[in-house]
Amino acid sequence: MSDSLRVSRRSLLATAGAGALTAAVPGVASAAGPDEAPVSTPSETKEVDVAIIGAGLTGLNAARALKSAGKSVHVVEADDRPGGRVWTVNLDDGTPVNWGATFVGPQQTEILALAKDVGVGTYKTWNSGKNVQFFNGQRKTYAGTVPQADVGSLLEVSRAMSRLNGLAGSMDPATPWTHPMAAELDKITAHTWIRQNATKLMSQKLLDLAVPALFSVEPWEVSALHLIFYVRSAGTIQNLLNVNAGAQESQFDGGSQIICERVAEQLGTGAVTYSSPARRVVTKDGRTTVYADGVTVVAKKVIVAVPPPMIPRISYEPLLSPTKDQICQHSPMGSVGKAVAVYDTPWWRAKGLTGQATSDIGPVKITFDISPASGKPGVMMGFVDGQDARDWSFWSYEDRRAKVLAQFAEWFGPEALSPRQYLDYNMDAQEWHRGCPVSVPQPGTITGYKDALRRPEGDLHFACTETATIWSGYMDGAVRAGKTVAAEVQAAL
Amino acid sequence: MSDSLRVSRRSLLATAGAGALTAAVPGVASAAGPDEAPVSTPSETKEVDVAIIGAGLTGLNAARALKSAGKSVHVVEADDRPGGRVWTVNLDDGTPVNWGATFVGPQQTEILALAKDVGVGTYKTWNSGKNVQFFNGQRKTYAGTVPQADVGSLLEVSRAMSRLNGLAGSMDPATPWTHPMAAELDKITAHTWIRQNATKLMSQKLLDLAVPALFSVEPWEVSALHLIFYVRSAGTIQNLLNVNAGAQESQFDGGSQIICERVAEQLGTGAVTYSSPARRVVTKDGRTTVYADGVTVVAKKVIVAVPPPMIPRISYEPLLSPTKDQICQHSPMGSVGKAVAVYDTPWWRAKGLTGQATSDIGPVKITFDISPASGKPGVMMGFVDGQDARDWSFWSYEDRRAKVLAQFAEWFGPEALSPRQYLDYNMDAQEWHRGCPVSVPQPGTITGYKDALRRPEGDLHFACTETATIWSGYMDGAVRAGKTVAAEVQAAL
Repeated sequence: MSDSLRVSRRSLLATAGAGALTAAVPGVASAAGPDEAPVSTPSETKEVDVAIIGAGLTGLNAARALKSAGKSVHVVEADDRPGGRVWTVNLDDGTPVNWGATFVGPQQTEILALAKDVGVGTYKTWNSGKNVQFFNGQRKTYAGTVPQADVGSLLEVSRAMSRLNGLAGSMDPATPWTHPMAAELDKITAHTWIRQNATKLMSQKLLDLAVPALFSVEPWEVSALHLIFYVRSAGTIQNLLNVNAGAQESQFDGGSQIICERVAEQLGTGAVTYSSPARRVVTKDGRTTVYADGVTVVAKKVIVAVPPPMIPRISYEPLLSPTKDQICQHSPMGSVGKAVAVYDTPWWRAKGLTGQATSDIGPVKITFDISPASGKPGVMMGFVDGQDARDWSFWSYEDRRAKVLAQFAEWFGPEALSPRQYLDYNMDAQEWHRGCPVSVPQPGTITGYKDALRRPEGDLHFACTETATIWSGYMDGAVRAGKTVAAEVQAAL
Repeated sequence: MSDSLRVSRRSLLATAGAGALTAAVPGVASAAGPDEAPVSTPSETKEVDVAIIGAGLTGLNAARALKSAGKSVHVVEADDRPGGRVWTVNLDDGTPVNWGATFVGPQQTEILALAKDVGVGTYKTWNSGKNVQFFNGQRKTYAGTVPQADVGSLLEVSRAMSRLNGLAGSMDPATPWTHPMAAELDKITAHTWIRQNATKLMSQKLLDLAVPALFSVEPWEVSALHLIFYVRSAGTIQNLLNVNAGAQESQFDGGSQIICERVAEQLGTGAVTYSSPARRVVTKDGRTTVYADGVTVVAKKVIVAVPPPMIPRISYEPLLSPTKDQICQHSPMGSVGKAVAVYDTPWWRAKGLTGQATSDIGPVKITFDISPASGKPGVMMGFVDGQDARDWSFWSYEDRRAKVLAQFAEWFGPEALSPRQYLDYNMDAQEWHRGCPVSVPQPGTITGYKDALRRPEGDLHFACTETATIWSGYMDGAVRAGKTVAAEVQAAL
């Protein structure tokens, strides 16, 4: 198992490219295993204007904005690295692999500006050649964005996508519950909506595939209204799904996490405490104290910048409101793993393949060529989403490896069976994430709880990519949410 | 506000019927407010065979079974009283009012046997006279279980109920995911299923009403498969909904919580630590330690007997499996409040009314006469379920009082406007509950996670009324779950 890993980029950086990595066994333990003691004794107390819980893109970017406005900040982070859901590991040769957020598109101007600002470049996702489609046990290839299907199904798919864009067009992304059809759309799942808007099995199958691709859940596990909101938040369904001119167009040189590392660095030495989960937040006499492992932070305002299901795992005094707690209960994280095979070269390119495949059976249903800009090594990545991620959490490493490589071989060629390294992980097994990429509102949640997620309570403010109205769920949304909450806190200070 | 209350029965008992009670203001604070300190220093360490987290009916009954099998047990309870979701408060004159589980039906043999065993009797829920139906702004009355509607709608409702019973009949309640139609039924909400099985607006409305009545959520917030499971678990939909010969037939003399108090007493002095939320559970070298406020319990086995959304709010080493954590994320609690008006007598009885009403507008949509067996005082209780419970968490006490009493007056008569006491609460605001009566699997949860909720992990075992297969969600299911987990633990010791 020396070819898999479960170390964070930060530990790797600390040990300067150490080679021996241990296996990421889903369901067993996260890299950042907590200490045995129930809660460590605070070793240090900091007093600042704003305490921030979570050093993901949102929390870090909020800290950055507040710092440049002259406010003092301190960030506590449960993991032993910055980034949160932006998580990059490095192979033995230094090649970065994004376990977390990977892609960036041209409309995502906020994350692109931030990356530029901290000196991180981008390169285009490999997209030359033909894509593979593996449906009903049959391998087909196609060029461009139109998959292999009969004309009737393609027309239905196209019509349904136009309808999604149309419904999204009449939505205010700040108040999706005010959409003229909100009540109706929030009463059904995306699965039901797809069947109301496409009658052919093939078009239903093609449309269904978009749901795990976007949310890492099955089509019946998300409100149709939230799907419309996601489209609105990104502009069009094409923006969400496409490589060229879409959300998968580019990747960051050196991995996405490097942006977070640089922002954290710029906050100054000691501005972030790592391996420091917040346990309890107490507001009293106009000051709020965050009790985290290893540090206690006393502040005028607190930003809770963690994924929605993690919010109520911290304890609060006074308690969070009923609607804040309940909206978090109604927004479970998607289930997602990634499987990565590393080869000396991206050999599929020479065969005229993009390295992109879609499949109607798992464990992998979507692949991408995520090789670095140099094309060396060749890195093939498979998404394991929704039910597939849950199922494979019971399999052994050897089983996962064998099943994934067999899929890659069937789609791209027998070379797939001999990678120089195979690694995978399951985000659901990570203590401070318990799923990815985003939390997914169940039917009734948006209309039932409205703005409960982002509504401040007392001196507590809340932000994460899920609170963003533009590119919600993406790195870009996280940066925006950080900016928005920083402005909100500044106004309240 | 001296006529409302937020004290637990235990504190009331301790202060021997003290009169001055403070207001239960939803969204503000629970009775059992935690201390300021992040976590209290353990003052005591206990070493037992089995540590039990949660002194609800499940945890207490598991403790009882293990103790009588000769095992040593210790129970830690976050609230300052036994009972969990079985929660009774007492009015100034001692009259018990159940904030939590209230009713018991003749098929619920396990809770009835337990009550008998600890000397708690039952009395029949008042059910003589006519029921009130308030639909489309119109008040009508009817006798028996058949509401006022056109024959076509009544036929549709009757057919849909037969279909529910039929689908339930072919389900093994231990494995609902193996039902022949499980995949299909778990992909849609109860709302969608109702519309697939009833076309008339009136019949849809009547069927819709059953969902908040059972789960305290809106019809689109629960998987249709779970509705079928609930019916199977109770035998028939009639068993669930009816007063005579159904789940609402009787109530316990002295309130439901007294059963839990007596079981706790029988466990012996010091067997339960109250106001002691478990924070962290660590298994190491064959022993598991539960770190709770005020006490540390070292045990061979641990039973986690808390509602599903509360399970991941405790931290574990080793971590819970991905599927255990995720099924808890996918099972939010229902939203529920109760409004209670107390009168010198149950004056509606003299008007030939049962005191039962159903309404298509809130805040109250269902009422019951919950007067004690003596009929003195007269106590009218209104359920505030699902969206109504969320909405009213923003209202002032005065607004809630005025709106509820106006509803009672419209349905039963102007006498309703002058209660000698009005009290209400919102279970969503309680720190260790955050909703009631049960957690509600979202579409995809049962088929996606199967038995993940009740599956033991290492030396941890899990039980709550939600893990019961018979009368799941009821006091009876809680007793059964306690017995089942006790047997499971005994076999593993």
